[in-house]
Amino acid sequence: MTGMAHKGRVLMIIMDGLGDRAVPEFSYRTPLQKARTPNMDWFAQNGSSGIMDVISPGIRPGSDTAHLALLGYDPYEVYAGRGPFEAAGIGLIGRKGDVAFRCNFATVDDDLVVTDRRAGRVKEPDTIELVEALQSLKMDGIEVIVGLGTEHRAALILRGEGLSSDVTDVDPHDHVRIWECKATSEKGERTADAVNEFVAAAHRILRDHPINVARKSKGLPPANILLPRGAGSFPDIIPFPEKTDMRSACVAGVGMIKGICGICGLDVLEIPACCTGGTGTDMIAKAKVALEALDEYDFVLMNIKAPDLSGHDSLADQKVEVIEKMDEMFAYIRERLPDDLVVAMTADHSTPVSVGDHSGDPVPLTIYSRHMVRDSCKAYNEADCGEGRLGRIRGKDLLPIVMDMANRSEKYGA
Amino acid sequence: MTGMAHKGRVLMIIMDGLGDRAVPEFSYRTPLQKARTPNMDWFAQNGSSGIMDVISPGIRPGSDTAHLALLGYDPYEVYAGRGPFEAAGIGLIGRKGDVAFRCNFATVDDDLVVTDRRAGRVKEPDTIELVEALQSLKMDGIEVIVGLGTEHRAALILRGEGLSSDVTDVDPHDHVRIWECKATSEKGERTADAVNEFVAAAHRILRDHPINVARKSKGLPPANILLPRGAGSFPDIIPFPEKTDMRSACVAGVGMIKGICGICGLDVLEIPACCTGGTGTDMIAKAKVALEALDEYDFVLMNIKAPDLSGHDSLADQKVEVIEKMDEMFAYIRERLPDDLVVAMTADHSTPVSVGDHSGDPVPLTIYSRHMVRDSCKAYNEADCGEGRLGRIRGKDLLPIVMDMANRSEKYGA
Repeated sequence: MTGMAHKGRVLMIIMDGLGDRAVPEFSYRTPLQKARTPNMDWFAQNGSSGIMDVISPGIRPGSDTAHLALLGYDPYEVYAGRGPFEAAGIGLIGRKGDVAFRCNFATVDDDLVVTDRRAGRVKEPDTIELVEALQSLKMDGIEVIVGLGTEHRAALILRGEGLSSDVTDVDPHDHVRIWECKATSEKGERTADAVNEFVAAAHRILRDHPINVARKSKGLPPANILLPRGAGSFPDIIPFPEKTDMRSACVAGVGMIKGICGICGLDVLEIPACCTGGTGTDMIAKAKVALEALDEYDFVLMNIKAPDLSGHDSLADQKVEVIEKMDEMFAYIRERLPDDLVVAMTADHSTPVSVGDHSGDPVPLTIYSRHMVRDSCKAYNEADCGEGRLGRIRGKDLLPIVMDMANRSEKYGA
Repeated sequence: MTGMAHKGRVLMIIMDGLGDRAVPEFSYRTPLQKARTPNMDWFAQNGSSGIMDVISPGIRPGSDTAHLALLGYDPYEVYAGRGPFEAAGIGLIGRKGDVAFRCNFATVDDDLVVTDRRAGRVKEPDTIELVEALQSLKMDGIEVIVGLGTEHRAALILRGEGLSSDVTDVDPHDHVRIWECKATSEKGERTADAVNEFVAAAHRILRDHPINVARKSKGLPPANILLPRGAGSFPDIIPFPEKTDMRSACVAGVGMIKGICGICGLDVLEIPACCTGGTGTDMIAKAKVALEALDEYDFVLMNIKAPDLSGHDSLADQKVEVIEKMDEMFAYIRERLPDDLVVAMTADHSTPVSVGDHSGDPVPLTIYSRHMVRDSCKAYNEADCGEGRLGRIRGKDLLPIVMDMANRSEKYGA
């Protein structure tokens, strides 16, 4: 630990999918360049900026691998499928050796052909009773845990000896017969058998369940099957608070982000209902939760999902609006900056409106603290940040840098 | 080797702890930004600049690991504790398999409780006689070498079969009973026994030594024990002159830096007494030694300790003064630049005055030679260099870059 210096706190603000590309209709500027962002720019003017390859140059990150990197983990070491993060996102945090799956409640006919992949977007309270009914399901030597997600979504954890995530999806993603789960390596054979047994057993329980009888009588598609996909193993990682010696929390609306942070050992804080995670979300309410959390935590990760949604929907004007709304949130933060706070403003990946999906473009980064060297970067965007003094770093470098700025890193050598 | 081009010489100037952070009282500039440095800036204007993570982004380097990186070694491969560098710094350069320790002469009472960790800052000529007395110490199968440091400091080398640095300190760093040396792995058991045997045998020799009898009669604390700490193995490295095919020397005042350079096979040059290593040091005298050494050597590393001292003492104004004094040294060098010289101006780490210790902030870097591409960087400091064309490099990249500028690197491929 640093000798005399006071240890600071860290606020990492992840603007999901913020990075973009030149938009011809915007005179070849990005949505972030077009938007009026005096407050984000203030942080750039009073800090140091750069660009960041969250995984490595040109690699398109998922939100899950990206957040792992931003938390200082090497995703190539610890990431093994999306299932565990989805499961954790709805509160099912498994342990090493568990295999987790994302699931959909769906409707199949008598030949197991999918007729509605979301069972008419079945939701609570129906799904609560159906998930409850599945808890009675017993399998030989394997424990089955089913968790309820939003609407038709659920998660499945299989727990037992010799399980592996080397198995294929059951969800055919189309109106065809459900797929048989198959092992993709010898290690996956026991798991593939267990998944097929689970799907069949769950189908028997759901098929004749009173909830589904009632749905059919109302003309609604029955939620008569659960379709697992995205098998993944829970990573064996050093919990973030242990690794960093920081009391750590996350403020996020999206299940998967909450799941990643939960698996990494961060406390997942409750946010008010007005923080919808959508483009109409109340960002200032979220920032309030994050700033108040700094009374109890040394490290807070805040994820704002809205810019990613506009990127996926290719809505350039909406992305500009979302960014300008975020800028008001930065005004709120700027007016309440504690002296010891290190603020990192960045994104988990770019979601360019011209692509409609994640891209491997580097993301803008500004690091602010009272003691941060000030460079000549005057505006927070993909172009200006790229000329700042932080240069071009990797996502996994961000945590060591902000921890050092907060006087929280160990000396290597004497 | 490069075909036609003349091989140049290299002067690497390491301004210890130079890098800093924004100082609020300096209008958020760093000491280096505040200082008037026309000569350092001249080098920036006539060379290329960048910033450097001496180990990797956000990692706080020790002076030892940093200098290893600057000499092109991977500290994660070759660094195993401070002991060998301290020993080498006082002229005890061991060989592979040796285990070295830093030691203090201290005063203990009859119960081996430390009453003065520095034995009243005992010094020469007392320590010369005491160290001499310890040379007679024989141990079964293990050779013992004790070297004299400054004041109460000494170094210990154990040489023999099956030794390891996996042992704990004897120095309790406090006024309590001395610690028993313990193995931290099975490999360290033989060494731990040897250390405990050495400490006891040395205590028997020192306790009744005439020097200590005399000290007691004068009311001075007797230097009646030697307390080892910081066990380290001598690294098994390719000597720098062999690795680089450059006749190489170091000009440094600080023992540990001399030790690192000595272990790496650089000739450690004598410097005049006016080069104290303190903030009042005569830097021009040191530069004179370095420039004259270039008559005989291809590579000279010069370390200037003063800025690090001001950083550790959190004296921002003093750091500015030290930097302006260094700038006069750069005027001296600039007036005497040989045509073939490549000059690298950088630091081994930052020692921000607001931290009072090493930090992981990147350090400024300018590389000058007559043939270096000139970028738009006009001032040598943490902010401007960060926007120069060298970008953001790692410490281990510096040596290959300057060797290449000196037309001394091997071609990779055809």
